[in-house]
Amino acid sequence: MIKTLEWTDEGVVMIDQRLLPTEEVYPIFKTYEEVAYAIKEMVVRGAPAIGVAAAMGVALGARNITAKDAAQFEQQFQLICEVLAGTRPTAVNLFWAIERMKTLYEKLKSEGLSLAEICVRLIEEAKHMHEEDVSINKAMGTNGATLIPDGATVLTHCNAGALATAGYGTALGVIRAAVEAGKKVAVYADETRPFLQGARLTAWELHKDNIPVTLITDNMAGHFMKAGKLDCVVVGADRIAANGDVANKIGTYSVAVLAKENNIPFYVAAPISTIDLNTKTGDDIPIEERPQTEVTHVKGTQLSPEGITIANPAFDVTPNRYVTAIITERGVARAPYTESLQALVQGA
Amino acid sequence: MIKTLEWTDEGVVMIDQRLLPTEEVYPIFKTYEEVAYAIKEMVVRGAPAIGVAAAMGVALGARNITAKDAAQFEQQFQLICEVLAGTRPTAVNLFWAIERMKTLYEKLKSEGLSLAEICVRLIEEAKHMHEEDVSINKAMGTNGATLIPDGATVLTHCNAGALATAGYGTALGVIRAAVEAGKKVAVYADETRPFLQGARLTAWELHKDNIPVTLITDNMAGHFMKAGKLDCVVVGADRIAANGDVANKIGTYSVAVLAKENNIPFYVAAPISTIDLNTKTGDDIPIEERPQTEVTHVKGTQLSPEGITIANPAFDVTPNRYVTAIITERGVARAPYTESLQALVQGA
Repeated sequence: MIKTLEWTDEGVVMIDQRLLPTEEVYPIFKTYEEVAYAIKEMVVRGAPAIGVAAAMGVALGARNITAKDAAQFEQQFQLICEVLAGTRPTAVNLFWAIERMKTLYEKLKSEGLSLAEICVRLIEEAKHMHEEDVSINKAMGTNGATLIPDGATVLTHCNAGALATAGYGTALGVIRAAVEAGKKVAVYADETRPFLQGARLTAWELHKDNIPVTLITDNMAGHFMKAGKLDCVVVGADRIAANGDVANKIGTYSVAVLAKENNIPFYVAAPISTIDLNTKTGDDIPIEERPQTEVTHVKGTQLSPEGITIANPAFDVTPNRYVTAIITERGVARAPYTESLQALVQGA
Repeated sequence: MIKTLEWTDEGVVMIDQRLLPTEEVYPIFKTYEEVAYAIKEMVVRGAPAIGVAAAMGVALGARNITAKDAAQFEQQFQLICEVLAGTRPTAVNLFWAIERMKTLYEKLKSEGLSLAEICVRLIEEAKHMHEEDVSINKAMGTNGATLIPDGATVLTHCNAGALATAGYGTALGVIRAAVEAGKKVAVYADETRPFLQGARLTAWELHKDNIPVTLITDNMAGHFMKAGKLDCVVVGADRIAANGDVANKIGTYSVAVLAKENNIPFYVAAPISTIDLNTKTGDDIPIEERPQTEVTHVKGTQLSPEGITIANPAFDVTPNRYVTAIITERGVARAPYTESLQALVQGA
């Protein structure tokens, strides 16, 4: 069992995903600032995992507040939430998790609980969100597994696995559930430049689970689709707009277009918390631009000449017309997404 | 002026493209076996450059033969041609160049020239093919430049530049010619995993020529097409079948599909020697599978876990329906390609 992140009394323990697959190291992040750093620097990544990490960061920060009164506590609590919300802009789970912690805080405050009691409850909530995320992924897996044919070879992009969540995974959860249901499933993993989540993380966790995985560079996916080697695509999501447009790791849009061109179903697996009904379409999703060195260097090795321009958008948006279905813990949504997603979100 | 390769009395001098852009080294390859090694290991790469290198390898090998008679010379000459032809399977220019040297040898033999005289003529022919390749690229540039709008941003994949040819380039030759015609042109270069020809070579040579270049990872091209940042695509080719199907660096097919989906013209620039009328369609083009370490490692740094399967097809085939036009030194071919390519090839 892969432990992506875990609450401990000392702080949040997270596997440092930057060092995988060659090193497996579990540092402890003891302050909310350290958790914010871990999110920003991608020690932890993947929309659901970021959400849980942020909730734990809020709980950790609240517990460490030394305030002379409730007003000062509140001021510091708001700062903690702001700092954590400022780490990454695209994955909506980050904001969703922080909002959930804030809402709980307001509720407990209005119920007249002491600051100490509030902190205990915030920690409990963060731990609960961790457990809940695993359950959600398993339900998503059950819902999605029926879409994966026995004997299928599935393409995935980036890492939407145990490492992107509290455990089990979204896209890889669907694949795991299909395997657990007795189906023979093989996976092609895009390496996913520049951060190489596919090569480093997806290949690592699938290999650990004995699910056959073939690593390819991102530009090979189309070739293997055309060659008839791939039966479907399953990816995760960082934010799904109300109309079904999907923000996910850069390159997802290209995979979706190639899948459509080759008549291959393109599935998105994501928890309800990734659906943002306040974001009308994909055009409204902010796309994070990450540091140039992710493109120009690999582990310190320089790849490109100096003096040129570098672009590094971390995400892209796949318009809803390329999405065959969206798999959630509450069921599978299909077009028209404006109706189907709203029904799922409201059908709590 | 970039010197990709050059004949000298000592042997063939080639810039070691594996070391670019951080090191600029020009080793001398003194035997045909060394030239074969340089082609196989991609010291020199790019279909037209491989052709010239192979011709020089044949000339070098012939010059170095120590045979007791004409029969022994011929036996060794055939071996040289076989070894060089066995280096890489996809680019047809390799076979075209070797065939041209063999045809010349047969002609000179039938004319009764001495072995010493034949060797002199073979060397002259290889040097002539070098000069000819630059002229061809310039003519191709002139023909293609008219297709590039003033102010355009052009996407290119891999390196079809001076480094892929004897000089000037095919796809980058078209861009250079547009710039020389006074047009403002900017380039987006796909980094082109796994060998990183875009990041290492295209970015390097365009930056040297002060042509603005933005480096992106391969999976970003679709995103920037959808965002309206790219006006056209120009790539090279390793082999063009009689029906206009184009074998080129892995990832080219994906770029072509994305271009079509976004209504962006997709141009292929290649010399007539890249058109192989004996290859009916792209299905008949052999696709080279290269070593796994190109995918799993970057300059010695391990990217992926051990024990997984790796695929590394070096090329893919873009069906002719995605190709807006094929730019050659004799003119621009458009669909239906079976007719237009045949007309160009026969219109010598």
